[in-house]
Amino acid sequence: MEEYFVKDINLASEGKKKIQWAEAHMPVLSLIREKFKQEKPFDGLTIGACMHITKETAVLMLVLKDGGAEVYLSASNPLSTQDDVAAALVKHDIHVYGKRGESIEEYNKMIDIVISHKPDIVIDDGGDLIVALHEKYSEIAKNIIGGCEETTTGVIRERALAKEGKLLFPVIAVNDALVKRLMDNKYGSGQSTLEGIMNATHVLLSGKIIVVAGFGYVGSGIASAARGMKARVIVVEVDPIKALIAALEGYEVMTMDKAAEIGDIFITATGNINIIRKEHMLKMKDRAILANSGHFNVEINLNDLKDISTKVRRINYCVEEYTLKNGRRIYLLGEGRLVNLVCAAGHPSDVMDASFALQALSAKFLLENKGKLSPYVYDVPIEINEEVAKLKLESMGIQIDTLTEEQKKYLESYKI
Amino acid sequence: MEEYFVKDINLASEGKKKIQWAEAHMPVLSLIREKFKQEKPFDGLTIGACMHITKETAVLMLVLKDGGAEVYLSASNPLSTQDDVAAALVKHDIHVYGKRGESIEEYNKMIDIVISHKPDIVIDDGGDLIVALHEKYSEIAKNIIGGCEETTTGVIRERALAKEGKLLFPVIAVNDALVKRLMDNKYGSGQSTLEGIMNATHVLLSGKIIVVAGFGYVGSGIASAARGMKARVIVVEVDPIKALIAALEGYEVMTMDKAAEIGDIFITATGNINIIRKEHMLKMKDRAILANSGHFNVEINLNDLKDISTKVRRINYCVEEYTLKNGRRIYLLGEGRLVNLVCAAGHPSDVMDASFALQALSAKFLLENKGKLSPYVYDVPIEINEEVAKLKLESMGIQIDTLTEEQKKYLESYKI
Amino acid sequence: MEEYFVKDINLASEGKKKIQWAEAHMPVLSLIREKFKQEKPFDGLTIGACMHITKETAVLMLVLKDGGAEVYLSASNPLSTQDDVAAALVKHDIHVYGKRGESIEEYNKMIDIVISHKPDIVIDDGGDLIVALHEKYSEIAKNIIGGCEETTTGVIRERALAKEGKLLFPVIAVNDALVKRLMDNKYGSGQSTLEGIMNATHVLLSGKIIVVAGFGYVGSGIASAARGMKARVIVVEVDPIKALIAALEGYEVMTMDKAAEIGDIFITATGNINIIRKEHMLKMKDRAILANSGHFNVEINLNDLKDISTKVRRINYCVEEYTLKNGRRIYLLGEGRLVNLVCAAGHPSDVMDASFALQALSAKFLLENKGKLSPYVYDVPIEINEEVAKLKLESMGIQIDTLTEEQKKYLESYKI
Amino acid sequence: MEEYFVKDINLASEGKKKIQWAEAHMPVLSLIREKFKQEKPFDGLTIGACMHITKETAVLMLVLKDGGAEVYLSASNPLSTQDDVAAALVKHDIHVYGKRGESIEEYNKMIDIVISHKPDIVIDDGGDLIVALHEKYSEIAKNIIGGCEETTTGVIRERALAKEGKLLFPVIAVNDALVKRLMDNKYGSGQSTLEGIMNATHVLLSGKIIVVAGFGYVGSGIASAARGMKARVIVVEVDPIKALIAALEGYEVMTMDKAAEIGDIFITATGNINIIRKEHMLKMKDRAILANSGHFNVEINLNDLKDISTKVRRINYCVEEYTLKNGRRIYLLGEGRLVNLVCAAGHPSDVMDASFALQALSAKFLLENKGKLSPYVYDVPIEINEEVAKLKLESMGIQIDTLTEEQKKYLESYKI
Repeated sequence: MEEYFVKDINLASEGKKKIQWAEAHMPVLSLIREKFKQEKPFDGLTIGACMHITKETAVLMLVLKDGGAEVYLSASNPLSTQDDVAAALVKHDIHVYGKRGESIEEYNKMIDIVISHKPDIVIDDGGDLIVALHEKYSEIAKNIIGGCEETTTGVIRERALAKEGKLLFPVIAVNDALVKRLMDNKYGSGQSTLEGIMNATHVLLSGKIIVVAGFGYVGSGIASAARGMKARVIVVEVDPIKALIAALEGYEVMTMDKAAEIGDIFITATGNINIIRKEHMLKMKDRAILANSGHFNVEINLNDLKDISTKVRRINYCVEEYTLKNGRRIYLLGEGRLVNLVCAAGHPSDVMDASFALQALSAKFLLENKGKLSPYVYDVPIEINEEVAKLKLESMGIQIDTLTEEQKKYLESYKI
Repeated sequence: MEEYFVKDINLASEGKKKIQWAEAHMPVLSLIREKFKQEKPFDGLTIGACMHITKETAVLMLVLKDGGAEVYLSASNPLSTQDDVAAALVKHDIHVYGKRGESIEEYNKMIDIVISHKPDIVIDDGGDLIVALHEKYSEIAKNIIGGCEETTTGVIRERALAKEGKLLFPVIAVNDALVKRLMDNKYGSGQSTLEGIMNATHVLLSGKIIVVAGFGYVGSGIASAARGMKARVIVVEVDPIKALIAALEGYEVMTMDKAAEIGDIFITATGNINIIRKEHMLKMKDRAILANSGHFNVEINLNDLKDISTKVRRINYCVEEYTLKNGRRIYLLGEGRLVNLVCAAGHPSDVMDASFALQALSAKFLLENKGKLSPYVYDVPIEINEEVAKLKLESMGIQIDTLTEEQKKYLESYKI
Repeated sequence: MEEYFVKDINLASEGKKKIQWAEAHMPVLSLIREKFKQEKPFDGLTIGACMHITKETAVLMLVLKDGGAEVYLSASNPLSTQDDVAAALVKHDIHVYGKRGESIEEYNKMIDIVISHKPDIVIDDGGDLIVALHEKYSEIAKNIIGGCEETTTGVIRERALAKEGKLLFPVIAVNDALVKRLMDNKYGSGQSTLEGIMNATHVLLSGKIIVVAGFGYVGSGIASAARGMKARVIVVEVDPIKALIAALEGYEVMTMDKAAEIGDIFITATGNINIIRKEHMLKMKDRAILANSGHFNVEINLNDLKDISTKVRRINYCVEEYTLKNGRRIYLLGEGRLVNLVCAAGHPSDVMDASFALQALSAKFLLENKGKLSPYVYDVPIEINEEVAKLKLESMGIQIDTLTEEQKKYLESYKI
Repeated sequence: MEEYFVKDINLASEGKKKIQWAEAHMPVLSLIREKFKQEKPFDGLTIGACMHITKETAVLMLVLKDGGAEVYLSASNPLSTQDDVAAALVKHDIHVYGKRGESIEEYNKMIDIVISHKPDIVIDDGGDLIVALHEKYSEIAKNIIGGCEETTTGVIRERALAKEGKLLFPVIAVNDALVKRLMDNKYGSGQSTLEGIMNATHVLLSGKIIVVAGFGYVGSGIASAARGMKARVIVVEVDPIKALIAALEGYEVMTMDKAAEIGDIFITATGNINIIRKEHMLKMKDRAILANSGHFNVEINLNDLKDISTKVRRINYCVEEYTLKNGRRIYLLGEGRLVNLVCAAGHPSDVMDASFALQALSAKFLLENKGKLSPYVYDVPIEINEEVAKLKLESMGIQIDTLTEEQKKYLESYKI
């Protein structure tokens, strides 16, 4: 078992600068760090995390460590690791296991190593750590105080475990916290998805026909940002209520079958598989661009794409050109992995500030309620949400009103 | 006891035309009407309603009647009744009690009359009917199968009753249904509030500084529409999470104290009292405009306004000019009552189509579950929400995708 | 020859209130009025005007009168006169000739009467007065110092006169002034066109498919406002540059032939004839709504509409229902006349403030340059534009920067 | 005299791929290239260009070469050269002189080399080539057929030359072409400026207070994109008309003095000097970000910034941190040079497609009108504008209407 697994420990100094920059844009987490330094809530405990190894994650890890924890971290995606940041974290005594471009075998092995250290609390991003605990290490899982989950996909998987009665410890669905959903899934993904596409392709968004599949928080954030950049936006949905909302927002709503014929850029954000399939690809215009913003690289059917292609060549670090049998070309971004992490630097630091503040406070909440929570997927308590929102507003220099006594009374009464 | 109470029965023919026009823009309700005509779900039952007497309400009343019910209707606001529609409804054998400009005494008496007919199901808009039932007619209330509530304010009041253990029958919070909230509270109020202000004042919205107090569905709809018309929008909130959302949407967020000094137009949409008070009014610029979009005329403190004024004069049917002691003028719209109903014709018909389709199906649901629901405020079942969304999309000519078998399986499983 | 021609002189007191309200929202014109009262620039002169007789026009007329002029005013549209305002103007010693619903014969006769008073300066809105002067009264025209034109249509007609060498006096194209175009054609028409449609039809704009024909100032203003209200907007154009701009703004751009099949609401704003023709109408969906925002009622081919219809009935003051031979219905607003004036109260007062400030200062400019300007259609001098913009900003409480000496020098030099 | 001057000729293969990708997104220029290959309009002529050496410029150079010209190219900015593209161009027989990070001396020397080859036609981007020709090489300048200018700054400088009667050959202000201004200055700069800021700083734009100085095409494009990304946008202007437009678009408008206190990110786009000065910097919040989108690095006063700082350190390739005497930090992007080129890859290829199509057709126009045009700064002929707009629409798959005969006649006539 290795003490760490990073690409090159000598990248640490470069990584340190990045972490400092991130910290500068994470005012809420900085405040929590100060508290944790004094309170040491995690003293004597081990925290295992499986997250994208980015400069923002680094700040969270340092906050947990300053809170007294021994921290083990593996990557939640083989392509998203920032190797310099990983190196810097090692220098800060975090046990890091991940390097950009690691194989699937390495990826899974790193998760196993984190688990082998018997974490008391786990923090997951996509569910791979928590699912591995349940499928392969139930004895370790039984002793875990609780877990926190960062993504929609992870929460779906953990809810499925709970539904089948298999969940072994309480999980806080940090992903579902309103503050997280808005800052991260909606505004963060909206911006960083477009960043990824702009970095990779360098096309003008204004006037382009952008098809967004999925109109949840992520999809609606992307649609809003794309329209904000003056694209013509088409929404594809399966849920009638979300589809109606999209239509009421003035978007065109149609089936993927229709959209396939007219789109310039396609972005998937559904959390489901095979959203863009062979039959759609064959209808697309020459030079259509495909990108995925969902957690896993399953939304664009890559096997289908390969099946109908005669040639593949790499254009740049983030773009592959597939030449189809019908002679048209399709540009696939980031191999169908999440475009905002693979082709851009992921979420802005100030987005992750809110998400990771929720993570830090939720981990502390799990500890404070040790033994009181049965195995179940819980919402983040409203008080933690409000606390983070308040700190964020403060950091933005915004003051808001408070209810007067008279108004409080009015809201509580039905007499008017 | 009178059989009906309307301003002038001779207005019926004018009212009929209006109802036809509304019907033409309520395709979902029209479809439900066809079903109800055959099924007669309410045969032998009495339905009591307290709603704004508008052409759209008229269509709902006719749907219920075609479903077999005997219908009694009183106004839910003394100033919102369309007298010609009221007259036309009488001709269609609906028992109507309401005329525009009725006194508070008359208003309350009309509610009492509706109750006196011992309704089996009640439909309320603001809670006055349901609260009266609990405060004054508990014997009648005990026999009621259930109620449906249209507004945020009403739901707050009925939840307060439930919390105190006083609620006597189940209530469906139609107001809270996502489809209703979006179409009605958000998009409907957004448009009709601006309509009311434009009708009353005839000012250009572009470039105006519009202060919106409250960033719930109604407030955020108003803010979005106002920005869409190129106003500079300031949001005032007490809830840190809503305030954060407003800030992330790019709105200026500040206290009313600060906003009072710079706003051109102030719109309240909080569901709370005394949002705009003496101390704010005294800071306002000359010719500031005040409007309310909340259910009750309590959000702008009218006593305060009178206290600090030396003169009041009426500019037109919807605008009063208050001259303050400091020499500045404040224009109050619709006497502080909800500006979209008093100064414009309320929600567009196609908005009410969705809300009232939910009402009709929820009333039927109450009946189908008679005896199974304990006294409590219930959400509209998701199936009814989806049904209405689907019918609405169809009426808009929009087709959406459905999950493939493979996708359904994927969503249900945690294995990837 | 009559001294005035209005519907009912007793409506004057109602009209006075309206004029006061308009004045309150026309701060720039009010300032100019104060100056004119002292300077009396038009002393001894006669001004003839052919304009929409609205409360804002009334304020301009009073400014000219306070500047010393004898003022004669006829209506520039048989359906746009506000009769109470007309009556009030008579009481203020303006010679008014116009009543809502006057016949075409009356309309033309009123223009003749204005001309018969041998105006020194003319102010026109659409070109009917100036064209009549050239076609029928060239002897009077020869003595005119100059004219000011308010609309795109009028400027086109007067340019055509100039091109043919027939123009007899200089004309200032007030319409073309950037400040006017923006406030009036773009933002003013954007808002008031939607007001007209909302007043007439009471439909929700959110989610509607709105087809805008013409993407000049008026059309782009309507498109922007419609999108701001969350409609899905389609633009129809013949000019490739304007079409490209629309596409780059993210609008769908297509031919009327295609748009006809999918639109819910059609708005023409081209300044040209027969934009919506038989072949388009026959493709439209049931209950399509047609409105015109161009100056003349020629953009929707009314003869075509009548030809293909089997029945017409009036729904309300602003909507007629045409039942086509194919069984579908088309709703025509305001008989195809400009929907913002016929179905709403025209431009907001603060819009007209800018336009009419330009008119007043341009009329004065004509006088100051009497004899120096050959017959030609002139732009409003940039100094007048800037003057009005400055006054308007001041009235909005906005302060802007001024160039430093260093910056002025830099801009004038090519050395860097 | 060297045949070329690039960083490393071995980078050519990487550069070739980039050029291919650009070509794929420049459909209009590709079409023109096909024509030029056959027509060879520039046979026997020399073209000298001073432009940003990017993959898009490369495509234009190849189009000119395929049109028969011998092409000499130097960089128009010491920091904007893409070294691999420069290398690839050399392999394509273009004479290239430029490498990223060249000194000012090298920069000027490279321009001299281009001039020494006695170009028949010049293409400039900022005016450095044309000004050098007039200041140092008037004998060569006298024989030049004409020039094309790409930027606002260049046009200002050449107009200054013309005004002083010093201009020696006709110049086409390609920059001023409406199609160029929109695609390039407005939409292109809007997107790429934000790209530069996002790349460099990785901050969330949503909720940030972004101050845009200058509301011309570039500034208004930035403001629109920033609002589209949900920032709160403040506009600073000196021109009352532009300021009024900004206010009517709903932006906050104020002086830089006021804006300095509240902004998070400041972007200059004025074409003038010293927009952000010492007195503003001292008022800024800790961690304010400064970026420039104007052509020259003169808009942010760098001397002032150095004067008031105690420490400077580099955060990353595009960010320097200045610590002020008051303890606060200011982040300067790209050393105050244009942020979209220095911190991002400049304009999207499809933007440059339009600009460079105008360049190619304007160069041909100069040749066709050799001897007919006196030394003056000319607009791009409307026919060339329309031609490019048409080709661009075609490439976007958009069909538009054409005027009917009847409509043409109507527009030409003043009779209605």
